Amino acid sequence: MASWKPLLQAAMDSHAHLKHSSFIQLATLGTSGRPANRTVVFRGFPDASDRIQIHTDSRSCKIEEIKHCPFGEICWYFTESWEQFRINGRIEIIDNSSSDAVKIQQREKAWHSISHKSKLQYLVPPPRLPYTEEPSKDYQLDPSAGPVDAFSVLILDPDQVDYVNLKSNVRWIFTSRMGDGGKIWMHEKVNP
Amino acid sequence: MASWKPLLQAAMDSHAHLKHSSFIQLATLGTSGRPANRTVVFRGFPDASDRIQIHTDSRSCKIEEIKHCPFGEICWYFTESWEQFRINGRIEIIDNSSSDAVKIQQREKAWHSISHKSKLQYLVPPPRLPYTEEPSKDYQLDPSAGPVDAFSVLILDPDQVDYVNLKSNVRWIFTSRMGDGGKIWMHEKVNP
Repeated sequence: MASWKPLLQAAMDSHAHLKHSSFIQLATLGTSGRPANRTVVFRGFPDASDRIQIHTDSRSCKIEEIKHCPFGEICWYFTESWEQFRINGRIEIIDNSSSDAVKIQQREKAWHSISHKSKLQYLVPPPRLPYTEEPSKDYQLDPSAGPVDAFSVLILDPDQVDYVNLKSNVRWIFTSRMGDGGKIWMHEKVNP
Repeated sequence: MASWKPLLQAAMDSHAHLKHSSFIQLATLGTSGRPANRTVVFRGFPDASDRIQIHTDSRSCKIEEIKHCPFGEICWYFTESWEQFRINGRIEIIDNSSSDAVKIQQREKAWHSISHKSKLQYLVPPPRLPYTEEPSKDYQLDPSAGPVDAFSVLILDPDQVDYVNLKSNVRWIFTSRMGDGGKIWMHEKVNP
């Protein structure tokens, strides 16, 4: 198991009463070459791995950005314990064009894990385009149906985690390398 | 005045009771070409402008990163009002090598605005280097002395602000251009 994950899990547990504690900031490289940064929702570690799952609209800018540069850094700050995790890695997009059976299933599972209200957000007019008055129609969604086209899953596979605790003034850098049996994590205590 | 600033000011005012509401995430481009992202503290709008002031250690990675690519995006999420500001612009570094009289004064003023405890953070061993046991010595700081070498000021000069209110489901994109009398802001209502 990644050695930073118990630290993150403990921070998540101690902040479970705060809805915003699952809101994280994801930085990507904008298509203009400038950094981009926005809040997204942490949706779990798929298959109990150390990868991080996020859901997004296929029509949002970040999809183009990630296709252009597949690296990102999550900044996850815990407001009560004063802990920060900077999680850097490669991002994979799982969208309606995925043909891999495992990924199709992963996207289906993600879709069924979200609320009806969250699902409806993928049916509204495209984000960031000039505002269009929403028609008064009710969007119909069959609860048993699979994901709509605009629903995408992002999986960030970390290869570096920079952890700092501003109360105890302790900082660790976790880095990974590929070994024979998969990813191996090392860590070093550094000055905060 | 920048048309997004009253919105930001109102969000700041309504969250003034929350210490973490001045903590913002700054994305830059890492020297490896990957995005970098970390929490920093909002230190005000210098000279009542629409620019954003941040303090940092000259020895931190972000200084090298900003010298390499001077653009950044701040993500500022307000946890109670569900408002997000994404503030993109060029970042200027004001450090101990600045020779411009106005900038020297701006750095002096910033130094004297911070607490004694904050000042001491610029005297400790360099961040991110292998941990060195801190000697038990007390760092001595003359309260009237000017900034120490490691103290830098960052000024982000916004040219785009993406505002979204997740309660009212309203999103505005503010963009600027240079006019005869300085920066002119335009805005457009877009789909959230």
